[in-house]
Amino acid sequence: MAAAVGGEEVTNRQVILKRYVTGCPMVEDMEVVTGTLRLAVPPGSPAVLVKNLYLSCDPYMRTRMTRHAVPSFVPDYVPGKVQPDGTPVVVVVDNCLSVCIYTCYTVDNCQVLDNCGVSKVVLSGHPDFKPGDLLWGVTGWEEYTLIPNPVFCHMINHREFPLSYYTGVLGVPGLTAYAGLFEVAKAKKGECVFVSAAAGAVGQIVGQLAKLTGCYVVGSAGSDQKVNLLKTKFGFNDAFNYKKELDLNAALKRCFPHGIDVYFENVGGAMLDAVLHNMRHRGRVAVCGQVSQYNLEWPDGVDLFRLVGNHIRMEGFLVSDYLGEYHRFEEEMARYLNEGKVVCVEDVAEGIEAAPAALVGLFAGRNVGKQVVAVARE
Amino acid sequence: MAAAVGGEEVTNRQVILKRYVTGCPMVEDMEVVTGTLRLAVPPGSPAVLVKNLYLSCDPYMRTRMTRHAVPSFVPDYVPGKVQPDGTPVVVVVDNCLSVCIYTCYTVDNCQVLDNCGVSKVVLSGHPDFKPGDLLWGVTGWEEYTLIPNPVFCHMINHREFPLSYYTGVLGVPGLTAYAGLFEVAKAKKGECVFVSAAAGAVGQIVGQLAKLTGCYVVGSAGSDQKVNLLKTKFGFNDAFNYKKELDLNAALKRCFPHGIDVYFENVGGAMLDAVLHNMRHRGRVAVCGQVSQYNLEWPDGVDLFRLVGNHIRMEGFLVSDYLGEYHRFEEEMARYLNEGKVVCVEDVAEGIEAAPAALVGLFAGRNVGKQVVAVARE
Repeated sequence: MAAAVGGEEVTNRQVILKRYVTGCPMVEDMEVVTGTLRLAVPPGSPAVLVKNLYLSCDPYMRTRMTRHAVPSFVPDYVPGKVQPDGTPVVVVVDNCLSVCIYTCYTVDNCQVLDNCGVSKVVLSGHPDFKPGDLLWGVTGWEEYTLIPNPVFCHMINHREFPLSYYTGVLGVPGLTAYAGLFEVAKAKKGECVFVSAAAGAVGQIVGQLAKLTGCYVVGSAGSDQKVNLLKTKFGFNDAFNYKKELDLNAALKRCFPHGIDVYFENVGGAMLDAVLHNMRHRGRVAVCGQVSQYNLEWPDGVDLFRLVGNHIRMEGFLVSDYLGEYHRFEEEMARYLNEGKVVCVEDVAEGIEAAPAALVGLFAGRNVGKQVVAVARE
Repeated sequence: MAAAVGGEEVTNRQVILKRYVTGCPMVEDMEVVTGTLRLAVPPGSPAVLVKNLYLSCDPYMRTRMTRHAVPSFVPDYVPGKVQPDGTPVVVVVDNCLSVCIYTCYTVDNCQVLDNCGVSKVVLSGHPDFKPGDLLWGVTGWEEYTLIPNPVFCHMINHREFPLSYYTGVLGVPGLTAYAGLFEVAKAKKGECVFVSAAAGAVGQIVGQLAKLTGCYVVGSAGSDQKVNLLKTKFGFNDAFNYKKELDLNAALKRCFPHGIDVYFENVGGAMLDAVLHNMRHRGRVAVCGQVSQYNLEWPDGVDLFRLVGNHIRMEGFLVSDYLGEYHRFEEEMARYLNEGKVVCVEDVAEGIEAAPAALVGLFAGRNVGKQVVAVARE
């Protein structure tokens, strides 16, 4: 094996982004280039040099192919060329919002696409890893990758499964399904769970975990073949092909006559809209991805994919859920008012005849403060 | 007082909805009609007959002026006429999703607008209320209202304040501010809080409660007069007139250079979009209302006002928040796989050259199951 030589040059085919993508990504937006790589790790560094075995393809990668004005949760891929000697051009990534699992790697190698994969260690400067070890974690879309600081590399513990499972059910998609369903959406036995993109890497695991928990589970997918898979192989209670439904709202009503408790959101747009019309009281939407939005230059309305990067919680509420707290509130607020700690401003319209204009005025912002109609003074 | 006579007829001016509203509501969409009402309660019923003193004007009322295909959390107002004798035409309301605080009243009287108000009891068939009592709760937009079953009527306990406060700071807007800020958004000392429509009935209380909690508070409003009020009377740390900002994102960055922890959402649309780009990790958005959307025939993109009616929680997440759980997950999932309780389907592309097409294929739905690229088998 070349590893022992510690200086041998090998060819290294690498996938680079040729240009920022608008709309649907095309094969021509990327290029497979061939460079050479010297099999060595910088002396004294904790780097590992790996041979890549399996690379994961995930829809979120599309979001990294556009240059963002506002930083996203992972650095954008930077279009560029590999230098003639096969080493990457160093590009400073200045638009990564947070120090995340990707940062360590992509700062130096950002023009080669990266994502999770399964790799075998060729050379290691890191005490935790030795040649021949099998790892999964963030790596480059190339044959060999020098990982400068392997903070997101895990040993593969279960060799009884195909190694590729560590790009899926035992890797990030599996953990995503598990965390989203149980930690974020808090799905419980007996609840009604809907999963979109249900035949995908994450969706297929979500559905099966929800079934194991005793939920009623329905999935949507984009072909009859996938729908069949959901019902037969993955054991979903029901499934539908969203491309064949004229009315998503009606499809959801048919599948969930009493509404949805948990929605595992992978798609956004029209499906999310229809789901929100069919949620039950105190329903939870775990926003994992919004694949319908990634290829749009401007997302529909509010950019809800923003919820994902910062683990933002949006929660609707009605005051009627809290009427039981009214008395406690009344006493606390009365004290604040008596102590002058809270003040209020009212805008009082006089007489029932003034009521329509007072209501209309709210939408022109004519009122200053709380709008009231005084019908009678006693 | 007429109450004692128990049969006297009085004139009763009432505000009715003349037609369903599209776009901005106009005064002409409503009509003030004059009927007569016999001052009496049906023998043996728990009804109370009240004289209305103060009526609350709230933006959410606009949402009830459109006939909804999908039921909302309160019944739509039904356009119609009052009968010549002043009694309402009984209309069966079939589009109320849930039994809520409004149902008891509006089933019988839905063509007269209703909302919260402050009233004085004239006659009572209910053991908890007697003539002369002052109440607040749901009542009609009219001079006198017969409330068939006063389940949402509260005695007014604090007579030291203007009665109208029970339509605002001590009524539903006050409790809304309190519950939304503390129960839903869980605002804590030292956090950065942003409030839109901040000079309104709810917003002015949100800001003051957040300040009392030790938060840094900024509000937006639609006039310089209101902005001035926020800064001087209500003690907000900062405020801006959203109509004068060319770039809402820039305005928020100026006010919150380190981001927003809690957003009390009253407006929706472009402001919500800008806020989501400025939220901090694990930020919370309490969705109280979305006034910018109420007059639109089709809301922008996803109809997020739907979150409100059913107390829906939408929560974005990244798997990187849960990497600490990976080992537990790995063992659990490996057990499921070994026991055959979870299966998975992969779609494997062969060779690094196949990687770009595999990635592009995700957006055409070409893959069936988890998409992997096998770069090498060992």
